[in-house]
Amino acid sequence: MKLIRYGKPGAEKPGLMLADGTLLDVSGFGQDYDQSFFEDQGIEKLRSWYNENKDSCATIEPGSRLGPPLKNPSKIVCVGLNYAMHAKESGMEVPKEPVLFFKATSSITGPYDDIVIPKNSEKTDWEVELAVVIGKKATYVEASEAMDYVAGYMLHNDVSERAFQLEMGGQWVKGKSADTFAPIGPELVTSDEVDDPHNLALWLKLNDETVQNSNTSDLIFSIPELISYISRFMSLLPGDVISTGTPSGVGLGLEPPRFLKSGDVVELGIDHVGTSKQNVKAFGE
Amino acid sequence: MKLIRYGKPGAEKPGLMLADGTLLDVSGFGQDYDQSFFEDQGIEKLRSWYNENKDSCATIEPGSRLGPPLKNPSKIVCVGLNYAMHAKESGMEVPKEPVLFFKATSSITGPYDDIVIPKNSEKTDWEVELAVVIGKKATYVEASEAMDYVAGYMLHNDVSERAFQLEMGGQWVKGKSADTFAPIGPELVTSDEVDDPHNLALWLKLNDETVQNSNTSDLIFSIPELISYISRFMSLLPGDVISTGTPSGVGLGLEPPRFLKSGDVVELGIDHVGTSKQNVKAFGE
Repeated sequence: MKLIRYGKPGAEKPGLMLADGTLLDVSGFGQDYDQSFFEDQGIEKLRSWYNENKDSCATIEPGSRLGPPLKNPSKIVCVGLNYAMHAKESGMEVPKEPVLFFKATSSITGPYDDIVIPKNSEKTDWEVELAVVIGKKATYVEASEAMDYVAGYMLHNDVSERAFQLEMGGQWVKGKSADTFAPIGPELVTSDEVDDPHNLALWLKLNDETVQNSNTSDLIFSIPELISYISRFMSLLPGDVISTGTPSGVGLGLEPPRFLKSGDVVELGIDHVGTSKQNVKAFGE
Repeated sequence: MKLIRYGKPGAEKPGLMLADGTLLDVSGFGQDYDQSFFEDQGIEKLRSWYNENKDSCATIEPGSRLGPPLKNPSKIVCVGLNYAMHAKESGMEVPKEPVLFFKATSSITGPYDDIVIPKNSEKTDWEVELAVVIGKKATYVEASEAMDYVAGYMLHNDVSERAFQLEMGGQWVKGKSADTFAPIGPELVTSDEVDDPHNLALWLKLNDETVQNSNTSDLIFSIPELISYISRFMSLLPGDVISTGTPSGVGLGLEPPRFLKSGDVVELGIDHVGTSKQNVKAFGE
């Protein structure tokens, strides 16, 4: 299944995207896609419910805003420098073990919403990433069993302000957490629909020019390795998001570096997972 | 008012602590202390409700478990090295601007619950801190107005695994986010009850020996400065927690360093905010 959510920011309703692209409202199922949904085997229950109720599900009006495809994850765990070429372009060494950081969940926004450049920003940058959604609580999980903990996959633009991240002392979180810095979706594709998450093309275009173009086969640390590793340091809760890192081609790594400005258009995608598009504007515009 | 929550982990109910220490159930108010509570002027509404309904509030049974005094904050923003002596004992420079990092909200636990030393940990450490609870959404707030955004204060033990934090590559979050690493409470003391949050004694005892003993007057960056600074990089949501940093006397800074082991008892407190106590045990004990 492909889970989507639609409606005004903060008041989204749950829906499904069918194979032909049709969007259906499934509010009748009675539960939004939040922590308790994933915790209570919501995906399987929704599948059964939908099979019995598909004829009564209304089509979502074309042009409706699509929101993030899940609600209020407890955390977004991001993996840094997880593609070798991106580590190199960032001037950093390929890490010996995964580099982890958090992104504020208040930065989550819809896949077609605007990216808002923060006040005092001159280095807002893009990062296409495959995001993994956790399906059940994971603590000290072995890599050999880790894929059982995956509910599904989403497209994520891990928008980053490089000066805030790297030039202001301390930890990366400052440059990762502004409002609108985490466009996710449109779909949450359930894990049964993705044959091999380690062989997915992913790309990002800035104003129609391809700047990132890679494949998840180049991940340094695989998805089960990441889940196992992270679960040694914290519990992953149902609905939590792991963003697996970005390949080369971010603005910081270009020569000369390029950063987002008002009027830019960012389009990105991952095979079998989805595509999204954001217009860029300055704060207050 | 002093807000508390009691009951089994994950199923706590809201309550109040009276001036004489009596604990009252206020489930009848109909709302737990979560984001929407703070967003909807819950503190003022609860005050009115309580004044009209105090005679019908049941006393909480003595010996009931106390939980964290708020439910599911969207984030815990921690401030590193915010006392000069602690920066020195950590072998780091006093920062020119606040060092920020996140702690997973899944690490939150009750004020008298056990601290569980993670698997493979040899350097689990303590940190008494004053935590600030945000009362309304804060984005680009001026320091001169920042105190209007404070709902109240809590005691927080920012438990930290130093090897995970400092020796495993990358960012501090790995050493800050294990389950039970954020005992908070017991009380959330509303801001009207704390005359001067910048003049509060705070202390921590390990097995009855005082190891941290300082005052929030020694904070390098004050509470309004922190709120204003953080709000340049992210939105603070109602119920979000800022932990303002720890003074000197952590295990890492002692000579020789000392870390927590099974059987240890940690007690901590902040004047006018509360005291807590945690027994330490190893994972699986």
